[in-house]
Amino acid sequence: MPIARIDLVEGKSAEYRRTIADVVYDQMSKHLGVPEDRFQVITEHKIENFLYDPDYLGIYRSENCVFIQLSFIAGATTEQKAAFFKAVVDELHEKLYLRREDVFFHLFGVGTADWSMGNGVGTYNNGVPTNRLDPNSVPASPDGSK
Amino acid sequence: MPIARIDLVEGKSAEYRRTIADVVYDQMSKHLGVPEDRFQVITEHKIENFLYDPDYLGIYRSENCVFIQLSFIAGATTEQKAAFFKAVVDELHEKLYLRREDVFFHLFGVGTADWSMGNGVGTYNNGVPTNRLDPNSVPASPDGSK
Amino acid sequence: MPIARIDLVEGKSAEYRRTIADVVYDQMSKHLGVPEDRFQVITEHKIENFLYDPDYLGIYRSENCVFIQLSFIAGATTEQKAAFFKAVVDELHEKLYLRREDVFFHLFGVGTADWSMGNGVGTYNNGVPTNRLDPNSVPASPDGSK
Repeated sequence: MPIARIDLVEGKSAEYRRTIADVVYDQMSKHLGVPEDRFQVITEHKIENFLYDPDYLGIYRSENCVFIQLSFIAGATTEQKAAFFKAVVDELHEKLYLRREDVFFHLFGVGTADWSMGNGVGTYNNGVPTNRLDPNSVPASPDGSK
Repeated sequence: MPIARIDLVEGKSAEYRRTIADVVYDQMSKHLGVPEDRFQVITEHKIENFLYDPDYLGIYRSENCVFIQLSFIAGATTEQKAAFFKAVVDELHEKLYLRREDVFFHLFGVGTADWSMGNGVGTYNNGVPTNRLDPNSVPASPDGSK
Repeated sequence: MPIARIDLVEGKSAEYRRTIADVVYDQMSKHLGVPEDRFQVITEHKIENFLYDPDYLGIYRSENCVFIQLSFIAGATTEQKAAFFKAVVDELHEKLYLRREDVFFHLFGVGTADWSMGNGVGTYNNGVPTNRLDPNSVPASPDGSK
């Protein structure tokens, strides 16, 4: 159910952009305790339409700055979120030589009733499946029902 | 006050895109208990920038996948949201032959103070008007004031 | 930490768009009690993809309509938000002759753990710095720790 919006300046290759998306997906699955599903939108902007703070908190940012927005069911802890931030930045640095200073994140936590992953159904109204290919893999609720 | 962000792959006609927006508007008005106002942004993406999960929960999605994001004042019930999902998907299937599997929704509920619909005023600070053309059609509060 | 998404119809000059972004930044810093950092994305849309309600609540909107979305740590009061709406609209009217009716706002309040402003760190996990260039300018917590 997470959906990512990735914003960056135009001019990077499709492979570069795809790598960013891949890394966000891989690390979100590892760190945020969310289902391993992938819904991501990448938007390339003219530099004049993409404004990043050049030195907020003494962090010097460049035109390679990437904004990563991720929305998912609220529940991840502060520690999980921090681990996600670090893991993404480390892997982007390793794979794309992207400066660690140039990755900006913001997360949105929303409710279980706020998602439909297809077929016009409120996907998580009976719980969050634990197997990405089995919609019936929902943990039983405390009273024994699903 | 609802605002929709509709994301899809480029290549569809203006009429096709408009129909998606029309359906989202009509069904949100019917099912979500929100004012009948219309603010919608459609973004067309290159296929390489629009990543949909091909088989999450055993639902097979195609390049016709549409992501529908809707933000509105929190308050709709789980049942209302589920009815909205179903109604949109059914009508899109009927009008555009859009596969039911290809419609992904995510909703955001926010506060009443978070909206200004024009004129630089916090539109809902005194309540939500019940008539779409009359800003004074606000239900009286329990103490008799507006 | 605030991040703005500004949507409008294509056809305005870069200077016009930049002025909108400048005004949003300046007034958010003055009115919302947020750090003075600047992260903004402007998206220009084809008119057919940008749907604004022409007369909701008796407010007549034109093709110059601008949608301003701002996300920041929850905490601003209703009064602060209303002051922000009014100040932006007044300044846009003065500087760009933008009609007051044509500015639509929606705000999102999120948690402190939901942000990383660079370096893969959960920037506000220990508090919100008070000096935009000093990450250590965090107010001491009540128990004397930072």
